Amino acid sequence: MFQRIMVANRGEIALRVIRACRDLGIEVVAVYSEADRGAAYLELADEAICIGPGPATESYLKIPRIISAAEIAGVEAIHPGYGFLSENAHFAEVCRGCKIEFIGPPEEAMRRLGNKNAAKQIARQANVPVVPGSDGLITDPEQAKEFANRVGYPVLIKAAAGGGGRGMRVARNELDLVSGLQAAAQEAEAAFKDGSVYLEKYLDRPRHIEVQILGDRFGNVVHLYERDCSLQRRHQKLVEESPAPNLPVEVREAICAAAVRLAKTAGYYSAGTCEFLLDQQNNFYFIEVNARIQVEHPVSELVTGVDLVREQIRIAAGEALGYTQSDIVHRGCAIECRINAEDPANDFRPSPGQITTWRPPGGPGVRLDSHVITGYKVPPNYDSLVAKLLVHQPTRTEALAAMRRALREFVVEGIKTTIPLHRDIFNTAAFVEGKVDTTLIERTFMQSKPGGT
Amino acid sequence: MFQRIMVANRGEIALRVIRACRDLGIEVVAVYSEADRGAAYLELADEAICIGPGPATESYLKIPRIISAAEIAGVEAIHPGYGFLSENAHFAEVCRGCKIEFIGPPEEAMRRLGNKNAAKQIARQANVPVVPGSDGLITDPEQAKEFANRVGYPVLIKAAAGGGGRGMRVARNELDLVSGLQAAAQEAEAAFKDGSVYLEKYLDRPRHIEVQILGDRFGNVVHLYERDCSLQRRHQKLVEESPAPNLPVEVREAICAAAVRLAKTAGYYSAGTCEFLLDQQNNFYFIEVNARIQVEHPVSELVTGVDLVREQIRIAAGEALGYTQSDIVHRGCAIECRINAEDPANDFRPSPGQITTWRPPGGPGVRLDSHVITGYKVPPNYDSLVAKLLVHQPTRTEALAAMRRALREFVVEGIKTTIPLHRDIFNTAAFVEGKVDTTLIERTFMQSKPGGT
Repeated sequence: MFQRIMVANRGEIALRVIRACRDLGIEVVAVYSEADRGAAYLELADEAICIGPGPATESYLKIPRIISAAEIAGVEAIHPGYGFLSENAHFAEVCRGCKIEFIGPPEEAMRRLGNKNAAKQIARQANVPVVPGSDGLITDPEQAKEFANRVGYPVLIKAAAGGGGRGMRVARNELDLVSGLQAAAQEAEAAFKDGSVYLEKYLDRPRHIEVQILGDRFGNVVHLYERDCSLQRRHQKLVEESPAPNLPVEVREAICAAAVRLAKTAGYYSAGTCEFLLDQQNNFYFIEVNARIQVEHPVSELVTGVDLVREQIRIAAGEALGYTQSDIVHRGCAIECRINAEDPANDFRPSPGQITTWRPPGGPGVRLDSHVITGYKVPPNYDSLVAKLLVHQPTRTEALAAMRRALREFVVEGIKTTIPLHRDIFNTAAFVEGKVDTTLIERTFMQSKPGGT
Repeated sequence: MFQRIMVANRGEIALRVIRACRDLGIEVVAVYSEADRGAAYLELADEAICIGPGPATESYLKIPRIISAAEIAGVEAIHPGYGFLSENAHFAEVCRGCKIEFIGPPEEAMRRLGNKNAAKQIARQANVPVVPGSDGLITDPEQAKEFANRVGYPVLIKAAAGGGGRGMRVARNELDLVSGLQAAAQEAEAAFKDGSVYLEKYLDRPRHIEVQILGDRFGNVVHLYERDCSLQRRHQKLVEESPAPNLPVEVREAICAAAVRLAKTAGYYSAGTCEFLLDQQNNFYFIEVNARIQVEHPVSELVTGVDLVREQIRIAAGEALGYTQSDIVHRGCAIECRINAEDPANDFRPSPGQITTWRPPGGPGVRLDSHVITGYKVPPNYDSLVAKLLVHQPTRTEALAAMRRALREFVVEGIKTTIPLHRDIFNTAAFVEGKVDTTLIERTFMQSKPGGT
């Protein structure tokens, strides 16, 4: 096992890794940018090293500075957390080239899964369904009709050069399709100087379901069941839970098995997540792999009792899993709320600044992962996550009640947070009934808000 | 189920009951003395009623004031917490006479178990071993020798009129016994004007092991396994854990079964605890029943997943348990540290006053039950408990590491607390190895301290 590792990240995930090291009896070195200087969580590391100015490109994303700090501190391994360099295969390669173990998956798997097309190819190879697409550009309407008849309406017309929703249209029947093709091509030509388009099956109000997996260097892979992360605002997850509500058991088993096949096919090890969309008929389609620990990993820790960060470290040190799928038992229901320093009443504008009161909830079934204390200044430079509030209860109904209780207890003053939105979510009928999809938040909370888009 | 209940207590247990009510969707009314006016946890109740001046005899122990408050608030039931009126059968009777349900055991069982002799009689009836005693006064040495030969040395000579350790001597052989009897009788005569003495088997360095039980009004009783509470200072528990370390499985099963027999024989329902002493040969002896929820109940909640306070409320409302012994599965290891406002470097002198910084730990496997926030003033009037810090991990080794981590994170300024002592305990070899007994704390930490007795 390692004796000393570094966490190349900041905020709550840095503290999460520091805690895992304490629990394993490993020394841990933190790094910080000038914007994070003096943060209280740094005192919980054995050493903290400044790696540059506030902008992440000058510090948390600057590979040479991180490697220098690691060499000065004499660490054997680096945990990249999430975001920043966590999915950068080049960084993993540099680490290993410097004889510093990268606590994450092998570079080869990172590279292939980091490329959308290569990842889809692995999925097909593993017999995992992907969202059906036209396999190339659409040049005439007959080809488009043939595709739409094969996969069924609605279909999505996408500009090959597009992105971020631009040049996209939904066709719900043949008439839409034919007119849409032409309009989309013209739009794309005007916007991107490239009128080529392709088609994909369009999923109406899909759910986002992901499967946590864990593998070792010896080819052992287990899943830790699924998380439903359908509650999103502009693709940012707000609430995550396990088990996914109202998911038939055979779909759950199939989706978890698909994730394990995919990870094995990719030669994956360490912790990772396979993300899927689920349509209203409970068909699931692979989207991508997150080749790192995720923000919402504690949800799976609560329902399985497995500490994922400790497992990542053990696996990176060359240890075998030491357990099999049947040892991983799912118990109860866990829910996480991401508490962000944003103003939900003001189009989620970031709300950095000093926290004058920080009074977190406690009691039975509550877990709080946060680097924040009273007096902490949320820097404007980074991600706005200030706390992950989790509950674990025998049933979903009890988990909802416990989360309401915890949200009621949570007092934050000095900045705006998403706590009021979370309170509203937990009193929203569709969510309470588990009727969730990725559009629920925007349909329920965003439409009448001035300033929202 | 009740719609509205009152908690007739203060501090962390009042907040614990408030949280349970939130989780059950029940309205909850708090009471407070003038010394607790303005405490933040009161805001989490639906209503808070002042019941008198600071001294408990004028407020938390004053039955007419509590009943009046309950009637004004229109509650259907009263949860007494622990301490104060929680084991007062008369209070339970008054409540029920006023058509207010008392959330606790039936009066009859409370009365019988509240009397040491009656409780021992119930134990014998239930075939549960009690510490062997001479069944009456010892008047001549032959009688004493005969008793000692039967139960084995050492034996304890106790003055019938004594108490608090006065008039007690240990005899480790026949010579000790004969001389000790005479000396004890003379001492007792001088001290209490009553020279009569009796004998009990003396347990050298015993362990304190207790069993959590839960019963309903229909005669169903289950146990929630044992807690080892051997780490005590002057009979005040400091650390509690489950499972009891180094306890042979057959002893564990026997002691848990004994507790269930005893509760059934006593006609007990609600939550309760059977306390036992365990000698070095793993023989166990019943001491007493705590006919209420205990401070350390969250230890059992963590390892079983059962919420004991919610169960108390459900049972008081007339619901059946709805599960059997085989449904109660013990998982992992849980440990609790009682954090008191006392100065361990100064003979545990109480340390009331204002808390200027309160920065509790968090992260995986940590639970904190506390009514304290930054700025809270610990009143001098009551029990010094300010927080219960708990961890839950798959193994004891991991639980010890997690508790060390949590204790390291915990920052309290403005008053003295027992946190430094707890940090020392978790680095003490005998405790780490699970070699615990009720004298360990005093043998390890108290002898060289000036001012200690």
